[in-house]
Amino acid sequence: MNDLFAKRMSKVPRSFVREILKVTDKPDIISFAGGLPHPDSFPYQEIAQAAEHVLSQEGKEALQYSTTEGYRPLRGYIAQRYQDKGLKVDSEEIMITNGSQQGLDLAGKVFLDKDDIVLVERPTYLAAIQALGLYEPIFKSIPLLKDGIDTETLTNALEDSPAKLLYTIPNFQNPTGISYSLKKRLEVAKLIRNNETILVEDDPYGEIRFMGEHLPSIKNFLNESVFLGSFSKMISPGIRLGWIIAQEEFMEKLVTAKQASDLHSNYLAQRIVYRYLTEYNVEKQLNKIREMYRRQRDLMIAMIKEYFPSGVTYTEPEGGMFLWVTLPNGLSAMDLFDVAIKENVTFVPGEAFYTNGGEKNTLRLNFSNSDEGKIEEGMRRLGKATGKLLKST
Amino acid sequence: MNDLFAKRMSKVPRSFVREILKVTDKPDIISFAGGLPHPDSFPYQEIAQAAEHVLSQEGKEALQYSTTEGYRPLRGYIAQRYQDKGLKVDSEEIMITNGSQQGLDLAGKVFLDKDDIVLVERPTYLAAIQALGLYEPIFKSIPLLKDGIDTETLTNALEDSPAKLLYTIPNFQNPTGISYSLKKRLEVAKLIRNNETILVEDDPYGEIRFMGEHLPSIKNFLNESVFLGSFSKMISPGIRLGWIIAQEEFMEKLVTAKQASDLHSNYLAQRIVYRYLTEYNVEKQLNKIREMYRRQRDLMIAMIKEYFPSGVTYTEPEGGMFLWVTLPNGLSAMDLFDVAIKENVTFVPGEAFYTNGGEKNTLRLNFSNSDEGKIEEGMRRLGKATGKLLKST
Repeated sequence: MNDLFAKRMSKVPRSFVREILKVTDKPDIISFAGGLPHPDSFPYQEIAQAAEHVLSQEGKEALQYSTTEGYRPLRGYIAQRYQDKGLKVDSEEIMITNGSQQGLDLAGKVFLDKDDIVLVERPTYLAAIQALGLYEPIFKSIPLLKDGIDTETLTNALEDSPAKLLYTIPNFQNPTGISYSLKKRLEVAKLIRNNETILVEDDPYGEIRFMGEHLPSIKNFLNESVFLGSFSKMISPGIRLGWIIAQEEFMEKLVTAKQASDLHSNYLAQRIVYRYLTEYNVEKQLNKIREMYRRQRDLMIAMIKEYFPSGVTYTEPEGGMFLWVTLPNGLSAMDLFDVAIKENVTFVPGEAFYTNGGEKNTLRLNFSNSDEGKIEEGMRRLGKATGKLLKST
Repeated sequence: MNDLFAKRMSKVPRSFVREILKVTDKPDIISFAGGLPHPDSFPYQEIAQAAEHVLSQEGKEALQYSTTEGYRPLRGYIAQRYQDKGLKVDSEEIMITNGSQQGLDLAGKVFLDKDDIVLVERPTYLAAIQALGLYEPIFKSIPLLKDGIDTETLTNALEDSPAKLLYTIPNFQNPTGISYSLKKRLEVAKLIRNNETILVEDDPYGEIRFMGEHLPSIKNFLNESVFLGSFSKMISPGIRLGWIIAQEEFMEKLVTAKQASDLHSNYLAQRIVYRYLTEYNVEKQLNKIREMYRRQRDLMIAMIKEYFPSGVTYTEPEGGMFLWVTLPNGLSAMDLFDVAIKENVTFVPGEAFYTNGGEKNTLRLNFSNSDEGKIEEGMRRLGKATGKLLKST
């Protein structure tokens, strides 16, 4: 039965997050493990009204098959939103996907042959490794510094052997919360422009900046790329809608791959989201989320300062949903996980985010999904667990 | 730039249907080319009410991330529906997908290595060739007879070289409308049971039987298989919801593949459909569709008898959405296509449905999407075009 399944299936790492969620799905556990938005952030009343409008006024169209590229007015809205921020995008260059996750799968399907090299940040987004990993590339990881990818190592890697893709999350990266500086964005654009490598710029959190100044995407400086966006963090992840931006030559292949994968994304949901975006105040919605997450992020950092032993360091993200914590050298986040579970608090050990093994003393904390009461209590517990671990080693 | 894209991308046939739709997207053309349900069949008022119930009562849950397997009550409903028809299915063996099309993609991803053999009916569903084709198998086609696949040729093919998958549509096949007899279903189950080959049984039209008796699925006689179902023809294709049924060992891998592909299917839509199925009269809905399509199918056949030259033969499907027409020997459906376009009527030439070339004198007609007025006028035009072609050759 060993050759029953395709070889590619033996190369996918199980989702550590998924495994954790199984262990920790108890009501008295406070979890900083997932990557979920806060349910209070969902505009479900407005979505309900938008759904009512769509179904009563254009029900027959919304329930029918549609084009693979997606609902044209929605693609137009997305293009315009980028144009308003100074990024030149034509609606023809946009295809609607099932969240940005499907964008990763399609990029893998269209570009990756077995043993092609894919450069990723170190650490990087676990589900990107899973999606791209199914096309059996060789992952090489480039360290992520405080201001973005290590461009010196990247330069050497690109010279060393041609890479097919470079996968990046320049804004509020998952898992670290780190953002690329403007300088780093320019450097990466320049490096990629001079190579055959294709940039995959993943930007699910770009709209969730709650402090600091908006920075242009790498795409602003490098038009030939694959860019991924999502409504999951702006509106709702349950509606599974994102988009992929690419020039015509790439898009033709991406459309073919999407068509083979599932014909098109949920058309009813596309029309509902378009109505929501054009009939309601999405800026108010975004400001509500930003304000909520900023407060939660501030509180989580304050709690680290108050309850964690000295020697623990952490990132201070200007947006997104995650903090990255580094324990004193010699401590293991896997060990901390075991202690923390007994204290009824959980998180994801950093190891899950490395393609070739990584820092054992790192962990990811999610601050978006828990309200302030839970953050206060959960971080108290986690601080206590960290103290216990430190004493016992 | 030739090795810019993955090798698999060079092997996908363009969708002929898609190309046709581009050419023929004019209001005065009557199209029998697509595979769309009739828009009057969509229960959009009930869906609107179901959506309102979901969003007002469980909006926070419906808009959040969910499990890859899908909404548990919906999986339970589907399992029960099969059990009521005598097919033993546990809800744990069901995963919700983006239409049955995604089931095909996942089956390819999980099972197919390059150059694995995939057996398909001759002719077969074009989009299955596209979905599975991206995993670079070798397709071998087995003739489809009036009562199902040619089991003699199938027996020889299975003995000849081990095939990884056998892809079948036993009910009202796309493109031919042919259904397997009970005998053929039993024979295929027996053949597969004695081989290493995995059956992929695609059943998007099973609920749309408008005459004749319900026949058990091949899965009734062969539990170890991959079975695909869909709400597209029962309720709406725009909601992109289907399901895949497989035993635990297969399901574990299918879930991994789905998670990497898009995390999960639209959760809001899953809850809306579940509400619709449990709060409204789905049997009434199905009977309405069956009655509508039976009338349209009858009219289409009557029109062939009235307007088409003698020597034209056709299938008489007991359900589904398609008729398969065979022109007198020597006539080409591609030539007919050119003549028909001038008469403002269109269809899909049969060639599109063969993996290795096929009968040039065949064509597929869709009877579900057009109302009776259009069928009458469109078939008159197509009969005229066929007569013209016959005279000119």
